Amino acid sequence: MLSTKAQTKLCSPKQAVQLSRTLTPLLQGSSIGYHAGLRTSFASVYQHGDVRSFSTTSSRNLRDIFPAKETEHIRQTLPAWPHHGYTEQEMLDVVPAHREVKTWGDWTAWKIMRICRWGMDFATGMGKEQKVDKTSPTTAVSTIKPLTESQWLIRFLFLESIAGVPGMVAGMLRHLHSLRRLKRDNGWIETLLEESYNERMHLLTFMRMAEPGWFMKLMILGAQGVYFNSLFISYLISPKITHRFVGYLEEEAVHTYTMAIKQIEEGHLPKWTDPKFQIPEIAVKYWHMPEGKRTMKDLILYVRADEACHRGVNHTLGNLNQKEDPNPFVSEYKSDRPPPRPAARPEGYERAEVI
Amino acid sequence: MLSTKAQTKLCSPKQAVQLSRTLTPLLQGSSIGYHAGLRTSFASVYQHGDVRSFSTTSSRNLRDIFPAKETEHIRQTLPAWPHHGYTEQEMLDVVPAHREVKTWGDWTAWKIMRICRWGMDFATGMGKEQKVDKTSPTTAVSTIKPLTESQWLIRFLFLESIAGVPGMVAGMLRHLHSLRRLKRDNGWIETLLEESYNERMHLLTFMRMAEPGWFMKLMILGAQGVYFNSLFISYLISPKITHRFVGYLEEEAVHTYTMAIKQIEEGHLPKWTDPKFQIPEIAVKYWHMPEGKRTMKDLILYVRADEACHRGVNHTLGNLNQKEDPNPFVSEYKSDRPPPRPAARPEGYERAEVI
Ligand SMILES: [Fe+2]
Ligand SMILES: [Fe+2]
Ligand SMILES: [Fe+2]
Ligand SMILES: [Fe+2]
Repeated sequence: MLSTKAQTKLCSPKQAVQLSRTLTPLLQGSSIGYHAGLRTSFASVYQHGDVRSFSTTSSRNLRDIFPAKETEHIRQTLPAWPHHGYTEQEMLDVVPAHREVKTWGDWTAWKIMRICRWGMDFATGMGKEQKVDKTSPTTAVSTIKPLTESQWLIRFLFLESIAGVPGMVAGMLRHLHSLRRLKRDNGWIETLLEESYNERMHLLTFMRMAEPGWFMKLMILGAQGVYFNSLFISYLISPKITHRFVGYLEEEAVHTYTMAIKQIEEGHLPKWTDPKFQIPEIAVKYWHMPEGKRTMKDLILYVRADEACHRGVNHTLGNLNQKEDPNPFVSEYKSDRPPPRPAARPEGYERAEVI
Repeated sequence: MLSTKAQTKLCSPKQAVQLSRTLTPLLQGSSIGYHAGLRTSFASVYQHGDVRSFSTTSSRNLRDIFPAKETEHIRQTLPAWPHHGYTEQEMLDVVPAHREVKTWGDWTAWKIMRICRWGMDFATGMGKEQKVDKTSPTTAVSTIKPLTESQWLIRFLFLESIAGVPGMVAGMLRHLHSLRRLKRDNGWIETLLEESYNERMHLLTFMRMAEPGWFMKLMILGAQGVYFNSLFISYLISPKITHRFVGYLEEEAVHTYTMAIKQIEEGHLPKWTDPKFQIPEIAVKYWHMPEGKRTMKDLILYVRADEACHRGVNHTLGNLNQKEDPNPFVSEYKSDRPPPRPAARPEGYERAEVI
């Protein structure tokens, strides 16, 4: 496993100061209060790599954040849902996109997402010059200044720690509904639970590159509490709007990862292009990443393709009759039709196309 | 699909009266009140079969309770977790059993289960002569009088409608825990969610043989509300005791199905041994039941084997360290050890055996 690999601190004091400056207004007047320890707490970001390349911590102090369990009898525990894989072309074809708002439900979902995105940019400590054009927030990818590796990791972690919630909430509610109404579910639960599992794998992957401090952990805890309860209620009120909301959330995810890929390609993230930088073993195994194709950019291409799938799936589910329609993504189609490919349809399929 | 098959009413007036008699004390003084319609509401049990064999309802009035969705484009929706199958010997080897109470946690779980069982016997309208020896409630299978087919179906439905809850609650809570603590789960979630799916398939199977009236539907609704919330809280307080409780619940399930099999073998349930009686298509597909082995008894043998798995799995999970140990049932074992077989271990594996 990874336990022998080294981790190095990459968060520069300057970045940490910038983060704490951003967070100061948040904390003043809160019961937590602001103190000097915050900088390290929030932003102590670690990264796998060779110790010699950018060592600031001696290898003796380094540890594996998630030791995969190997016991006296057990060798390993395999992933619950094996990944179905992508062709390289499929991954490269993913583009940031936005499904136009058509109904008032779409509008509601979109507006709430704008607020979440604002909160996310704020928590990542994004400067003004690091943001994209406000008028097309999910498709514009040019900024004046790139983010740093640690800013990206904080963003990824935060995004993924809440991204695993909606699929689980929706899957659970549909399961309970099926049990108490004594009705079939027609295949939705499976896709929703698999989505939440896939998001959790994203989180576990990025977690191997960074160890958040207590403050970020607290933020993640609070965010889950708010997010879980909001989604629970919102899914009970309107599953349609909730799927649309998740569709918009996934637009943001595709956008975030596309920007990261662009900045890697432009050479702004040298720590991730360093040939000695290694991505975590858990990711190599989960996506079956071929040898020679295991850079950080390759990894983010896989993750982004997953997000593009979620985007297409949720926008499609948001178009369906929630009670009657079968899930098109696990259905067997009649002879002449290929199954739908959600990654290639950013705005989802309209109901008439798949049902 | 099944939509062309006929369903016939099999609930005799005598059985219905017996049921309503049992329920009278429950309803007197309740806000629902007792009225003449109750008999049909609670106990209108239908069963698939040839119309000519015991027809009381004309085939024109019959309908398929769960039409599998077939739309313009979609042929069918496949099961989320394909069933892994059993050998015939594995199914026949299942025996009712009881894991001895060892800790105060076991004792708590066991006592709560005694109350649930009492409630279940009551709701099924079990007469005194239909009950087994009280001193070994999960292993004794002899009674003076058998249950009727409709009593069995009510029991199965009620049992299965709550059996799908604990796996989902536990899986969801572990998923959320992993996300917010940024920790691996080590394979538990998968088995727990699969268990809840398997239970839902049991429910959907039996639902195709019976249509509960509004009163039973109300009971199922209420039971889910109470059961979900209790398990949610209990799993947060002590997952260990909760897994033990589910282990005891599964002991009851194995016991129930063993008794049903015994009564079928002894010829007490003629409607289910009638050669024209057909089990639902959904069951044939899910368990891949071979032709010529598709009687009601065969079906219950499959269901019972599933329950025996759940029993062994949950008693084992109740023996493990909830935070650290990998799930032995999805782990790859080192060369010389076969993987654990939970159906054959009614009392579960002790921690030292599998970790
Ligand atoms: Fe993700
Ligand atoms: Fe996603
Ligand atoms: Fe069951
Ligand atoms: Fe069970």
